[in-house]
Amino acid sequence: MPTPKSRRKARRNAEQQGESRFDRRLGEILAHATEMFYTKGYEGASMRDLSRSSGMSLAGLYYYFESKEKLLYLIQKHTFSTISEQLKSRLRGVTDPEERVRLSIRNHLEYFLGNLKAMKVLSHEDESLAGPLGAEIAGLKRDYYRFVYGLVEELRKERGKGFNGEISTRVAVLSLFGMMNWIYTWHDPRRDPDAEGISAQMAHIFLRGLMENRNAQPGSVGSAARRRQRSAATNI
Amino acid sequence: MPTPKSRRKARRNAEQQGESRFDRRLGEILAHATEMFYTKGYEGASMRDLSRSSGMSLAGLYYYFESKEKLLYLIQKHTFSTISEQLKSRLRGVTDPEERVRLSIRNHLEYFLGNLKAMKVLSHEDESLAGPLGAEIAGLKRDYYRFVYGLVEELRKERGKGFNGEISTRVAVLSLFGMMNWIYTWHDPRRDPDAEGISAQMAHIFLRGLMENRNAQPGSVGSAARRRQRSAATNI
Repeated sequence: MPTPKSRRKARRNAEQQGESRFDRRLGEILAHATEMFYTKGYEGASMRDLSRSSGMSLAGLYYYFESKEKLLYLIQKHTFSTISEQLKSRLRGVTDPEERVRLSIRNHLEYFLGNLKAMKVLSHEDESLAGPLGAEIAGLKRDYYRFVYGLVEELRKERGKGFNGEISTRVAVLSLFGMMNWIYTWHDPRRDPDAEGISAQMAHIFLRGLMENRNAQPGSVGSAARRRQRSAATNI
Repeated sequence: MPTPKSRRKARRNAEQQGESRFDRRLGEILAHATEMFYTKGYEGASMRDLSRSSGMSLAGLYYYFESKEKLLYLIQKHTFSTISEQLKSRLRGVTDPEERVRLSIRNHLEYFLGNLKAMKVLSHEDESLAGPLGAEIAGLKRDYYRFVYGLVEELRKERGKGFNGEISTRVAVLSLFGMMNWIYTWHDPRRDPDAEGISAQMAHIFLRGLMENRNAQPGSVGSAARRRQRSAATNI
């Protein structure tokens, strides 16, 4: 553990060397920490492991990050902030509700497949942060969820009766996140399409899946259930 | 750790008391282990913790299960075997391909929501088992995936051109598993529909989502892309 004196000295050094070097170093350590949590799991990894793998002294590590919790917090905060900012900037000037949902799927999958290790850590360590840090991350996550929820609600309004009234926006959006987030368990860059290709397929399943079942096959359960509903209504 | 003598004694006792009591005890310990892996994570939990929480001696625990790996293996094996057997028994006599896919969704979600803790352990500890035990579980999982894959392929054949040719069965089935498996992160029995209700919504999204986009909205990206494709084809 660093002494208060060593901490002051490290801070002075960091200030002298300018913020950019500090930022770069921070990014490097976060990348190392992500890698470590990815391979060992958050519980299984220690600050000592990170010190060894990153070449940074244990004292320096505690100086910059205070604790393992703080590292996980920084990884999670960075992920949710980046993905949300990128989405908002992509949506600027786009008004078509379907295209806005499509872009949110594309944005999520591009970030996800580009940062697969960070996303696995995020998915696995969803509940590892307690207290104010955990609450802050839960808030960022909720904001992102609500933003995508809003996009689907806009689509529902635009489509009116074309949108299947039996599907709740909550179940729809959480199904979409499931579809996308589960990808870390199966995506194989050698055999599977890239983010653009996967997005196109998932966007089709999701967007078409939300629509009312107008052209159901004669023998399908959907149309049989509707026939039963109609005859039930006639019986009243 | 139990001595060879204490192991022999425990085994003799188990034999004397008959298999049913052994099976019941096994089920109880697996439930305790699931609970423990759920709250502490597989890495964070120890055989000593399980001994304390289940009231079983550490010696007895090693006698029955040999290791923590073996416990995780038994939990995973039980889950995949049960879910697969239940599905096969439900599908007996059902020939309509859409209904067969619908039943597989219903079966998966009923099992999942009825065993949420076990499913979370399974999702989180997907890669914790190495060697022959891990290979056996991976095989059971592959068989289950392939079975559902086959159901979607049957539907594709039945629907012919109605099925969207740009969606691969692999991406579709893995998207479906994502939709369903992610539920352990969000399902709240106080506000969300039960397994039957969630199944109906997810089955609609999935089944309708696989179909060709015949009645696309005039302004949608899908139809615009198709217009571009058509004019590109005309230009050749």
